[in-house]
Amino acid sequence: MKEKEFDLITFGRSSIDLYSQDIGADFIDIKGFDAFVGGSPLNIAVGATRLGAKVSLLTGIGNDKVGDFIINFLKEQNVNTDTIARIDGARSSAVVLGIEPPDRFPLVYYRDNAADSQVTIDHVIAAKIDQYKILEISATALNIEPSRSAVFYAVETAFDNNVEVFLDMDFRADQWKDLRSFGLMVRAILPKVKIAIGTEEEILAATLQHADQVHISHQQISAPEIKGDIEASIQKIIKSGPELLIVKRGSKGATVYYKDGNKRDVPGFPVEILNVLGAGDAFASGFIYGYLQGWDIYKACRLGNASGAWVVQKSGCANAMPYHDELIQFVDSWGGL
Amino acid sequence: MKEKEFDLITFGRSSIDLYSQDIGADFIDIKGFDAFVGGSPLNIAVGATRLGAKVSLLTGIGNDKVGDFIINFLKEQNVNTDTIARIDGARSSAVVLGIEPPDRFPLVYYRDNAADSQVTIDHVIAAKIDQYKILEISATALNIEPSRSAVFYAVETAFDNNVEVFLDMDFRADQWKDLRSFGLMVRAILPKVKIAIGTEEEILAATLQHADQVHISHQQISAPEIKGDIEASIQKIIKSGPELLIVKRGSKGATVYYKDGNKRDVPGFPVEILNVLGAGDAFASGFIYGYLQGWDIYKACRLGNASGAWVVQKSGCANAMPYHDELIQFVDSWGGL
Amino acid sequence: MKEKEFDLITFGRSSIDLYSQDIGADFIDIKGFDAFVGGSPLNIAVGATRLGAKVSLLTGIGNDKVGDFIINFLKEQNVNTDTIARIDGARSSAVVLGIEPPDRFPLVYYRDNAADSQVTIDHVIAAKIDQYKILEISATALNIEPSRSAVFYAVETAFDNNVEVFLDMDFRADQWKDLRSFGLMVRAILPKVKIAIGTEEEILAATLQHADQVHISHQQISAPEIKGDIEASIQKIIKSGPELLIVKRGSKGATVYYKDGNKRDVPGFPVEILNVLGAGDAFASGFIYGYLQGWDIYKACRLGNASGAWVVQKSGCANAMPYHDELIQFVDSWGGL
Amino acid sequence: MKEKEFDLITFGRSSIDLYSQDIGADFIDIKGFDAFVGGSPLNIAVGATRLGAKVSLLTGIGNDKVGDFIINFLKEQNVNTDTIARIDGARSSAVVLGIEPPDRFPLVYYRDNAADSQVTIDHVIAAKIDQYKILEISATALNIEPSRSAVFYAVETAFDNNVEVFLDMDFRADQWKDLRSFGLMVRAILPKVKIAIGTEEEILAATLQHADQVHISHQQISAPEIKGDIEASIQKIIKSGPELLIVKRGSKGATVYYKDGNKRDVPGFPVEILNVLGAGDAFASGFIYGYLQGWDIYKACRLGNASGAWVVQKSGCANAMPYHDELIQFVDSWGGL
Repeated sequence: MKEKEFDLITFGRSSIDLYSQDIGADFIDIKGFDAFVGGSPLNIAVGATRLGAKVSLLTGIGNDKVGDFIINFLKEQNVNTDTIARIDGARSSAVVLGIEPPDRFPLVYYRDNAADSQVTIDHVIAAKIDQYKILEISATALNIEPSRSAVFYAVETAFDNNVEVFLDMDFRADQWKDLRSFGLMVRAILPKVKIAIGTEEEILAATLQHADQVHISHQQISAPEIKGDIEASIQKIIKSGPELLIVKRGSKGATVYYKDGNKRDVPGFPVEILNVLGAGDAFASGFIYGYLQGWDIYKACRLGNASGAWVVQKSGCANAMPYHDELIQFVDSWGGL
Repeated sequence: MKEKEFDLITFGRSSIDLYSQDIGADFIDIKGFDAFVGGSPLNIAVGATRLGAKVSLLTGIGNDKVGDFIINFLKEQNVNTDTIARIDGARSSAVVLGIEPPDRFPLVYYRDNAADSQVTIDHVIAAKIDQYKILEISATALNIEPSRSAVFYAVETAFDNNVEVFLDMDFRADQWKDLRSFGLMVRAILPKVKIAIGTEEEILAATLQHADQVHISHQQISAPEIKGDIEASIQKIIKSGPELLIVKRGSKGATVYYKDGNKRDVPGFPVEILNVLGAGDAFASGFIYGYLQGWDIYKACRLGNASGAWVVQKSGCANAMPYHDELIQFVDSWGGL
Repeated sequence: MKEKEFDLITFGRSSIDLYSQDIGADFIDIKGFDAFVGGSPLNIAVGATRLGAKVSLLTGIGNDKVGDFIINFLKEQNVNTDTIARIDGARSSAVVLGIEPPDRFPLVYYRDNAADSQVTIDHVIAAKIDQYKILEISATALNIEPSRSAVFYAVETAFDNNVEVFLDMDFRADQWKDLRSFGLMVRAILPKVKIAIGTEEEILAATLQHADQVHISHQQISAPEIKGDIEASIQKIIKSGPELLIVKRGSKGATVYYKDGNKRDVPGFPVEILNVLGAGDAFASGFIYGYLQGWDIYKACRLGNASGAWVVQKSGCANAMPYHDELIQFVDSWGGL
Repeated sequence: MKEKEFDLITFGRSSIDLYSQDIGADFIDIKGFDAFVGGSPLNIAVGATRLGAKVSLLTGIGNDKVGDFIINFLKEQNVNTDTIARIDGARSSAVVLGIEPPDRFPLVYYRDNAADSQVTIDHVIAAKIDQYKILEISATALNIEPSRSAVFYAVETAFDNNVEVFLDMDFRADQWKDLRSFGLMVRAILPKVKIAIGTEEEILAATLQHADQVHISHQQISAPEIKGDIEASIQKIIKSGPELLIVKRGSKGATVYYKDGNKRDVPGFPVEILNVLGAGDAFASGFIYGYLQGWDIYKACRLGNASGAWVVQKSGCANAMPYHDELIQFVDSWGGL
């Protein structure tokens, strides 16, 4: 890794996340919500910070109380917030979620006129990305302008300044007018991406040919079902640019795909699952932390898997991310990395 | 009152209202929210129904779980929901509120691309307004198209079909690009309004000449401070069309202004206040119920005041509206109407 | 008429009007266009100025060469342009027209993001409407915000300051998302209008109940065919507020409808027709000029008819408006008013 | 070249182009306009067809008379129009131009809600790009959605199906909210582009770092002045993907840059210039025609230069494109390719 002042800057969504307090209840019967913060890059920023990295979040918040709420949480977590833009006239994002374990998490996004979509090239310039070792991008930020151009600019700037680009293939179906645009934009930045991370659904989404491959079985459920040939899709992604593609496979762990056709499975930690939300972001923060330590990919993925396993046992996303010592202890209790 | 099949149709906003569970806490320290429903016309519909009226709500909800939540609540309350439009591609409104009694209720509206702003003339036609005795309009629905044209259409239809039009001068400052448009639109429909209801702030807003008269002291606080000559404003409103203007004055009760220059104070019920939210809608539902019974204006306003007093002692808006018998019992305990 | 510094301010659209040079040619065969300016309130401003009135135009133009073109023409015509707003980021309107006499004038409006729709309440305030004897409003300016609120504001300001409001019921079908909004907005301002002017089609449009009453027989033809009961529509309009409704009937002249149910026909000047475009605006400018002289309504309408007759013999709209002496000479040659 | 049914499909803008008939006149003094069609990909389609290629145009037109005008012209020119989408609710583009030779061509674009920006991925699919030898893309189509995603899709489809991608770095400053987005989008597709073509200004624009490098000296003049290091910019572009970068240098001809650092000047035809508009598109159509014949790059560029020289002697763009025999005759009169 190059010598840089900071470790990681994550770029993309941020939100207040309102989680049903009535676990298992149908959405219409929910009586109250716990107030958390969320958004994939925010979660990763918090997770990596808790593990010990020096992290900034590049996002936008509205000039509203929800924005204050988000900023306040991040400051408490020691995430650098100087790179967060206050956007007048836009609204801090919000997500309202039902919790119906094990696998139904109906959610409603409040992202019309979202402040985090209003991040511009000038905000990226002000963030001084060249000072970081890693730029982590959330693919949802590619959905509309001006954040889309800002992501392209950030990726180029990183690439030209020895900042490694990690892409989280974060796919939110309802954030794309044409679902196929998701893959087009992802594939357009992949040549400058070093490591891409995604679930099988996200990889299928990133190689989508027809809109009717996607089936959203529950209204606005977080993970849509997508048909397609997963092996072909993986090969298409890995050949589009990145050195590595890491496929997140939940309790089964992760699989690392290499450009030369090799792959390696990294086993997970088969804990009992309370809530899968945030597990992918926990994986990313654990993996990135390990990577920053100079660990090999296998070992870094193992820490990612451990971090994901930690989070699925808890409610919440950002709030549930493990701290360094407790995660190491957890890993040791399972026999180490 | 004319012979009509139904008593009341209210028209305008509807939302999930998320109330801080941490009474008195600064917004950034909120840990959870209670899930209610809200929006002035929704609250009035619930309140009038609980008192015994036959009521429909004309609003729009998104094709999302929050929409289901709103509909489900209304059905449980026996409000007719056949007049509610499901709007594809729009989002059910949401409001997130802090509760800092007695008078600070910082709130964040999620109303970009709101489904209730997407109600059209065709939805109004489908609602068959001529079957109702009273059409109650929320002035916020005048802020953008197509709901604005739909309100004008509804008011005309009511006026031409012996449906009495009541206007709640519901003013939400952040919902108007130019604050002066609020008054222009209100004054444009007043000639067809029979009874207008508002607070002093709302009456000042409806006669606003300069944007700098408005001062929003806390970020997105519900009630902005507005400078102006309240007596002149009241006279301007009453001369613009309605037979009566009812000014809601909180614990002091209400004052009824007549076209001929007369006015009459209607004393309130000086209970201890927990939360003023929803009190104005409670007043409207109590007043309308009394009016539907054929009571005189004074007596109907007294029931309105009682209903408002009931609600300020509770948390919540729609959920806190009194039922008929308990309200009458409350009134009796204070010496009757 | 009150003592005022200026005679007339017209408010609404302005555009570059490009007229086919190939009279009678199908649109696809047009080789060139003459460059004129247009827009109903602009035409009326030019016409009334040429007759001798002191006139301002309240409209918006873009920060572009077409805006310069429009301003330059108006200055040459001695229309006051201090009341014209330059709108950054918007575009001066344009119209491209085929000329297939006698009655087919296919036209294409370039009014997306039109500068004249961006006139605001503040522009109206700056225009000092109280200094004029007459405010003439073009109904098309009611179609979208912010010009819609600006019209309501202008009408109120005029009404409250002894400025007589004349409404040209200018109806452009493709400028309304819901055709019924046209009538709703027109009827909302009619209580403050002194004289309304329209064609039979426009009067039917202003009382439209169902969108399917409108039939646009040639793509974007200027005058759509509208079904309806014209006498009932006329009564509805006259009862909605104005003292007079003047129905323009082309070569047959005009008919004046009074509140008390009376009506009076004002014969036209049966000249040979080259091009009907601009005839209605010529009528308005002639009528307004006569009205400003203190003439009775019949005599003022006769001058309006003469002015219309003058223009139908020429190509162009604003450019073809008659000057005072030539119009009087024309009238005399037909036996006077 | 591969065996394909058709030679060339061009993708991007189309418009009615209205050229001042008053050569040399200031814009405000223009009396009339000649009606042509234009838009870089349209011009190239016409030019290549006239030379003998089998060409389709992929663009969007509105459901309006201007759309009819454009289609009619293209059919007369034998350009295949089956690939043109009619977009309801959008407007055919228009351009109004002043002609002040030699180098001032003030123009006003009417591209708000432009139909050619509404071309979607599904339109691209319907166009069956795999049947063509060459896909020529106009960079302006990358400015907004959905045409932006459609371009990315078209480029990928071409790349995967042995269709060579030529990029015309067509830069229209006022079509980009952030000028730097132009270069970001261009650079994102360059890896799949075989031959890029641009002027020096366009190449500077495509590598723009700061918005203040651009100076638009006359209001909306076609060619903005852009500061920067042209050699560095050329190297940046050629290293971003394409095999060749062809820099158009007006009467000086063109220069071809190769990946290996070599370059080759191709001299022009120093004719007297009437009007430079359309010269670049004439170059592209001549070059592409030569390339399709299997000529070497030098010879193809020479034909491009000849075609450009032909057009600068005439008024008009698409309409002025040379036919095969007359261009060869012209070339021969200058001593051949």
